[in-house]
Amino acid sequence: MSDIANTPAPPYYAVIFSSHLSADDKGYEAMAERMVALAATQPGFLGIESARENLGITVSYWESLEAIRQWKSNAEHQEAQRLGREQWYSSFRLRIAKVERDYGA
Amino acid sequence: MSDIANTPAPPYYAVIFSSHLSADDKGYEAMAERMVALAATQPGFLGIESARENLGITVSYWESLEAIRQWKSNAEHQEAQRLGREQWYSSFRLRIAKVERDYGA
Repeated sequence: MSDIANTPAPPYYAVIFSSHLSADDKGYEAMAERMVALAATQPGFLGIESARENLGITVSYWESLEAIRQWKSNAEHQEAQRLGREQWYSSFRLRIAKVERDYGA
Repeated sequence: MSDIANTPAPPYYAVIFSSHLSADDKGYEAMAERMVALAATQPGFLGIESARENLGITVSYWESLEAIRQWKSNAEHQEAQRLGREQWYSSFRLRIAKVERDYGA
């Protein structure tokens, strides 16, 4: 989770997930690791980057909006989303964005 | 820097900046704080989120591509970009993306 994702040339999609954990984050860490591993097996997955200090930011990259939709509806992921909303996150925001340009070194 | 950005309804733009620091990161922290403060004064700035573990992720939000272009060309920011490329970052990737949808709780 600590590498810069080796994404292809744009366009592609990014899901930017920003969150604060609640005091009751039991089970969160294991589920987060499981979701990263599971996401990587999904059709259209391009990579994932994650960092947390107080605020946590996870950016996953996808070939298409359809790939994002399928990942969102994955049964095991849906259970993780439910636990996140009900227990782990005191607040979160999810943004779906089309990457138009990128560069790096 | 630790709050979730209170962005308006989409569409708007995100600059996703992912980086690893080099061993020689002297001066980085002060400059990073200065750039967050300076960005917030720019036309079209909507918010910024940042977290670093090993990987650092900073996402800034902007009204338009033109606002991003102006921020990139800001003189003080250009000097920070130069120091980043030459000294602070062992690797980085910058992605410009159009936020099409968002939701949160």
